[in-house]
Amino acid sequence: MTSQDTLMRLHAVIETRRQGDPDKSYVARLFHKGTDAILKKIGEEATETVMAGKDGDRQKIVYEVADLWFHSMIALAQFGLSPAEVLAELERREGLSGLEEFAARKAQVREQQEGS
Amino acid sequence: MTSQDTLMRLHAVIETRRQGDPDKSYVARLFHKGTDAILKKIGEEATETVMAGKDGDRQKIVYEVADLWFHSMIALAQFGLSPAEVLAELERREGLSGLEEFAARKAQVREQQEGS
Amino acid sequence: MTSQDTLMRLHAVIETRRQGDPDKSYVARLFHKGTDAILKKIGEEATETVMAGKDGDRQKIVYEVADLWFHSMIALAQFGLSPAEVLAELERREGLSGLEEFAARKAQVREQQEGS
Amino acid sequence: MTSQDTLMRLHAVIETRRQGDPDKSYVARLFHKGTDAILKKIGEEATETVMAGKDGDRQKIVYEVADLWFHSMIALAQFGLSPAEVLAELERREGLSGLEEFAARKAQVREQQEGS
Repeated sequence: MTSQDTLMRLHAVIETRRQGDPDKSYVARLFHKGTDAILKKIGEEATETVMAGKDGDRQKIVYEVADLWFHSMIALAQFGLSPAEVLAELERREGLSGLEEFAARKAQVREQQEGS
Repeated sequence: MTSQDTLMRLHAVIETRRQGDPDKSYVARLFHKGTDAILKKIGEEATETVMAGKDGDRQKIVYEVADLWFHSMIALAQFGLSPAEVLAELERREGLSGLEEFAARKAQVREQQEGS
Repeated sequence: MTSQDTLMRLHAVIETRRQGDPDKSYVARLFHKGTDAILKKIGEEATETVMAGKDGDRQKIVYEVADLWFHSMIALAQFGLSPAEVLAELERREGLSGLEEFAARKAQVREQQEGS
Repeated sequence: MTSQDTLMRLHAVIETRRQGDPDKSYVARLFHKGTDAILKKIGEEATETVMAGKDGDRQKIVYEVADLWFHSMIALAQFGLSPAEVLAELERREGLSGLEEFAARKAQVREQQEGS
């Protein structure tokens, strides 16, 4: 099974949970609260990933990145998107040239923004 | 890992770039700067994802989540990890009961922490 | 506002810099880039504060909190606000009862949001 | 009353609350949970500040920056620091030359880090 399979199956689970009872399902509850609550979770889980990284705790890092990706997928679903679009974007950038082109462009934009 | 597996192939690309020249490769440069620089990018990309979500700009959301996942993968590689571990963790939680068990546990811990 | 008032004096400096040449002044440049660039800095500086805290490096913590507050003040100025409004809000909450009332209310809202 | 007075009085309130009963006081509870819980709040409140900024809601911006500064002060107290050190650092940077020197140095470091 590929990463696509796992992520798309998880996406399907999220879409099913979304229809559930907000009193019983965490996922339904989060969708019920709306966009701000979902986006706030991304900020929270990113902070927890950073802290796990500072601890150098590999198990915690895996756990927190899983949380971060899981809540990213809830955000995607909130906007009618799925991991398929994200994987397609990563595919697009991937490869020897593509990845570096992307990186070079980002760094260039950043330098233009930050530069004196 | 098959050639169809986007995340694992991207992970392999990251590991190859990592050995490259920091003067020429964004990925090599980020690894060269070390853990703090990598973790800082996670905070940055999470903030950009939140802002894209507030804009409700679907294309930007896909783009920023791709950035967030890409830099998460660099963080994983920094700790000798790969997306395989994250996907295994997500698989572990997935499924009707698993996902809700996880969510219920998280909410419970949060309530104990926050509760008066 | 008196000459002894650090934050209000810094606010005045920010407002003066804001009128400056974006090619020469960091503050002018940040205002020139606009709201998203300013808000992104808040996410960045918060991440750096968290990392300094994880390091337990007191000097770095002071430095990063100063960065975070400085960029918060730029965000305030972007919306026609000053530290005076933030201090008034903190004053309002402060005091034996006020602070706890605020905290209790926040925790209660959180519990209602998170609770199963 | 200056911003120093307000912040230092709030710092004193935080130090008093810190000694309180974690079952009754939000501040005591946060200290009781420890450094990670405190730092996590900084990430959360920064995200909420960014979202308030995207909404362009001035009242919410004031409220969220107050939250962010309040939790920054809890983090300072956790490390035996007070707003006095942060204000001194801001004083040090302040003034025509100082602020720009600081900004120029930060931008320069960033460019070196990001640059190809």
